[in-house]
Amino acid sequence: MEILRIPKIMQETSKRHIQKGKTIGFVPTMGALHNGHLSLFKRAREENDIVVASIFVNPTQFGPNEDFDKYPRDIEGDIEKLRTINVDIVFLPETKAMYPDNFLTFLYVEKLSEKLCGAFRPGHFKGVATVVNKLINIIKPHKIYFGQKDYQQCLIIRKMIEDLNIDTEMIICPTIREKDGLAMSSRNAYLKEKERVASALIYKTLVAVSDLIKSNKHPLPKIKEQMLNMLKEEPLFSEIQYASIYDTETLEELTELKKNNLVAIAVKIGDARLIDNIIIEIN
Amino acid sequence: MEILRIPKIMQETSKRHIQKGKTIGFVPTMGALHNGHLSLFKRAREENDIVVASIFVNPTQFGPNEDFDKYPRDIEGDIEKLRTINVDIVFLPETKAMYPDNFLTFLYVEKLSEKLCGAFRPGHFKGVATVVNKLINIIKPHKIYFGQKDYQQCLIIRKMIEDLNIDTEMIICPTIREKDGLAMSSRNAYLKEKERVASALIYKTLVAVSDLIKSNKHPLPKIKEQMLNMLKEEPLFSEIQYASIYDTETLEELTELKKNNLVAIAVKIGDARLIDNIIIEIN
Repeated sequence: MEILRIPKIMQETSKRHIQKGKTIGFVPTMGALHNGHLSLFKRAREENDIVVASIFVNPTQFGPNEDFDKYPRDIEGDIEKLRTINVDIVFLPETKAMYPDNFLTFLYVEKLSEKLCGAFRPGHFKGVATVVNKLINIIKPHKIYFGQKDYQQCLIIRKMIEDLNIDTEMIICPTIREKDGLAMSSRNAYLKEKERVASALIYKTLVAVSDLIKSNKHPLPKIKEQMLNMLKEEPLFSEIQYASIYDTETLEELTELKKNNLVAIAVKIGDARLIDNIIIEIN
Repeated sequence: MEILRIPKIMQETSKRHIQKGKTIGFVPTMGALHNGHLSLFKRAREENDIVVASIFVNPTQFGPNEDFDKYPRDIEGDIEKLRTINVDIVFLPETKAMYPDNFLTFLYVEKLSEKLCGAFRPGHFKGVATVVNKLINIIKPHKIYFGQKDYQQCLIIRKMIEDLNIDTEMIICPTIREKDGLAMSSRNAYLKEKERVASALIYKTLVAVSDLIKSNKHPLPKIKEQMLNMLKEEPLFSEIQYASIYDTETLEELTELKKNNLVAIAVKIGDARLIDNIIIEIN
């Protein structure tokens, strides 16, 4: 497994592989790898000649009062995991190499970046779109892999790829969950024991809402109300940032159900901010 | 000479050439080609296996009250010229193909986009950066060619390429001038006869300022004052938008001369807005 730190060298390496006719699958990460990430690598391994991982805790996607400094980092452990699952190249740039002094260029996906998490994390998706664009230009992947847990991020990257004619196919993989349903996330490491137990309520609520939708017996406002009430029962949730049902393409909150419906939640608990979602298709 | 209209087909064509080891030189234009453009194609022809021209009057770089509708268009004449100078591929997309409904993604180069022309044309350089980024993703050029007449545009594209790790080399070519010094521009077609004659004062002023700088006998505020006074003598200049001496990298107006100095002018005359610049190196 090659470990590359310099963007230009990573780019030249990718070009060499492409020139030889190899396909490149790329999984961008912020490290602290869990089984959610590993499922992406597994899929990338099946579909490409060369698998590239990036580990980069991207400062431009954190707000000034967010958890950039304490975001979990475990480079040694990550590299060991990537070696085990036969990743070919780990791209591990320094912050200064990605954002030199006087960095000025940003990408922005309008509308989609303002909704849901965007409303609570101003600038977050601008930072995400910018870093993913940079990583794609450096690594030149045929396919790029994201997890559905970050559904809004997936939608924004997909839109960026489409709008900017980027020659990379986006693959969205299912959310991987703990036994009690909690979506895997590097930020779960912030949870104290009681918080960890309480967090299972997020997925439990998503499933309950899904059942209510599928039963086709309840009006949508009633379902939304029940959804909120379920979450409010957990006193450890210090803030319910959003919890409702949204259009899967525009992220507008729905006033009536569609064919596909995004049920999404963001809550704060202890030092963590957790998000999760499921998509419910109805006939 | 191939004429391609569909972005995906242009992209596949470029990929085929790259896979065969060919180099691609790209000159993006808005058409109404003049000798300034042709000098870029000549340079591209010398330096690349395949030369691609694009002709696309990009709506996102025009303000609501600007000249998008009446911008000179001469597709037939342009294609004839491109054929004569041995361009290989003309990319001629429709507006809807470049900006489908619900297009949402934009690029922005902070600071540089706000100065000089940016102050008078809000959104202009956002549109420029976005369309050039798209064109680069579609055409995948090894080298891209711009004229120094649009110096601020050159600086912004160069910054975008650098910041976003775009694997394309930018080549800035000298401004091509009419016999009386007027910088060639598609917008010169707007000028009535008297306006055309008066417009020569722009370059004359640049040269006079250059001489003043090089003589090393005048303080900078005095030179700036003389520069403005020269331009004010022409009653056909209905607005002098800017006329001064700037840092060649940051575009800040200078209070003392540097090694390299950008002398730049934007004036309105008749239906036209004309810009020009020269860079003066002093020891």
